[in-house]
Amino acid sequence: MNSLTVALLQQSCNASREANVAACIQGIRKASLLGAKLVVLPELHNGSYFPQNEDTSLFDLAEPIPGPSTDLFSAAAREFGVVLVTSLFERRAAGLYHNTAVVFDSDGSMAGKYRKMHIPDDPAFYEKFYFTPGDLGFNPIQTSVGKLGVLVCWDQWFPEAARLMALAGAELLIYPTAIGWDPLDAADEQERQLNAWVTVQRGHAVANGTPVIAVNRVGHEADPAGIGSGIRFWGNSFVAGCQGEFLCQVGNDSEELLTCRIDLRRGEAVRRIWPFLRDRRIDAYGDLLLRYRD
Amino acid sequence: MNSLTVALLQQSCNASREANVAACIQGIRKASLLGAKLVVLPELHNGSYFPQNEDTSLFDLAEPIPGPSTDLFSAAAREFGVVLVTSLFERRAAGLYHNTAVVFDSDGSMAGKYRKMHIPDDPAFYEKFYFTPGDLGFNPIQTSVGKLGVLVCWDQWFPEAARLMALAGAELLIYPTAIGWDPLDAADEQERQLNAWVTVQRGHAVANGTPVIAVNRVGHEADPAGIGSGIRFWGNSFVAGCQGEFLCQVGNDSEELLTCRIDLRRGEAVRRIWPFLRDRRIDAYGDLLLRYRD
Repeated sequence: MNSLTVALLQQSCNASREANVAACIQGIRKASLLGAKLVVLPELHNGSYFPQNEDTSLFDLAEPIPGPSTDLFSAAAREFGVVLVTSLFERRAAGLYHNTAVVFDSDGSMAGKYRKMHIPDDPAFYEKFYFTPGDLGFNPIQTSVGKLGVLVCWDQWFPEAARLMALAGAELLIYPTAIGWDPLDAADEQERQLNAWVTVQRGHAVANGTPVIAVNRVGHEADPAGIGSGIRFWGNSFVAGCQGEFLCQVGNDSEELLTCRIDLRRGEAVRRIWPFLRDRRIDAYGDLLLRYRD
Repeated sequence: MNSLTVALLQQSCNASREANVAACIQGIRKASLLGAKLVVLPELHNGSYFPQNEDTSLFDLAEPIPGPSTDLFSAAAREFGVVLVTSLFERRAAGLYHNTAVVFDSDGSMAGKYRKMHIPDDPAFYEKFYFTPGDLGFNPIQTSVGKLGVLVCWDQWFPEAARLMALAGAELLIYPTAIGWDPLDAADEQERQLNAWVTVQRGHAVANGTPVIAVNRVGHEADPAGIGSGIRFWGNSFVAGCQGEFLCQVGNDSEELLTCRIDLRRGEAVRRIWPFLRDRRIDAYGDLLLRYRD
């Protein structure tokens, strides 16, 4: 396999699980008709972005894995013959919940899951309340289209996560995401934030010689408590090649089904001219395991 | 100190040590007149980029630290009252040489040195022949303008190096550099390489909430052996802020003295909204110390 066509579903989501799931299935169907063999959905695509507030009743949204959503997406992956990256609110036990990406192979089997390791917490993103930090480590998921380095949103700011996936043989880095602006922030701050988000992920592509796929939500979601100004999810889903170059990218204001062809041979060619894995100073990296070097 | 004016000397160099040093001193003088308190020179600024070939006689170019060059740049730092980042070919012992950055404080004292840790080796950049990998680790250098995370060129591709400097309290990341194009490469490949170089360093700024200063050579240097096509150093020296935004940048075709004012309060403000240091999963990073996870 020399190339792979991937599809990114940049979606807006709302409180209706039924409507969101229908939109996902519709997108997967279209992606398959366009020739995609790998389809990536945004973070927590089944609902509105509920961590805008802390509310114990919202744990009712979580479901077991396997469970109703995995049954449904397993069937979709099989029906449309695609490898599928989904993002679910996992109920592991009473009082123990995760933000979990589940990957299905094109025969509908569950290829693997990844529990979000880095958990954010800042105003309007109260994720530490809802999501226990992952305990499955940084391990790529083997599928029929390759070894997928699936990470989730906040993980995208951490070069360590990308590196660990690359060191374990990930052929693609994939980030289902839900990130946006505080509508009250100034335009120049919003621009810096968006560019930082794009840049740091392109940097992971460069540092690891590995393509990066980032799929974000789009559109405004109001604060259900009516206190904050909500979040304007900034879209800008993109695919970067092994040198961080844009292979494709969409805008910040509408739902999009983006397909992109990735040359899978490029990675080794790039790593031959830029053999960073050869030259890492693993003898001198011990302090990366410290919180701070003080 | 709320802000700092830095100067980047983007230079072309040649085989005349005398001419290169005179150009450096002239640049430092001008930078000081423009109000700079920190001046950064490009990598190995005292000579042509000699690692284009492997030639044992070129070890004659190396000099001890302290030695003639450190005497001279110490005097310049003191005379012009600036903190100065230099880059020298260090002779540590017969058969033991390093690519070493030496930092002088504004009183002329040697504030510290850093021996390049990651050593490249690819056609026209035969550095593994000349430079023993550094053994001083990744430690910022304390100066009167702050704690400087001084790294050198190839280090700029390794997020680990930037992170270790940030974890040790570096307030700025600084990369004296000698990087350029193979003139025979296609234009689109050249563009990808340049953008990758800029992007991965801007990514370090984002991931660490720390400004980045990159100072490169500029201009073509022929292969002294007359075999290869030489190197066209691509300039593009720049300063990025704590969100990776460009604070200033120059082009790829001429010598430049670039001054730039950096807001030193910005870092903490950015780290409060993006507290990546808080959320690192140090319990799960152990495999970063492996060459590969196989």
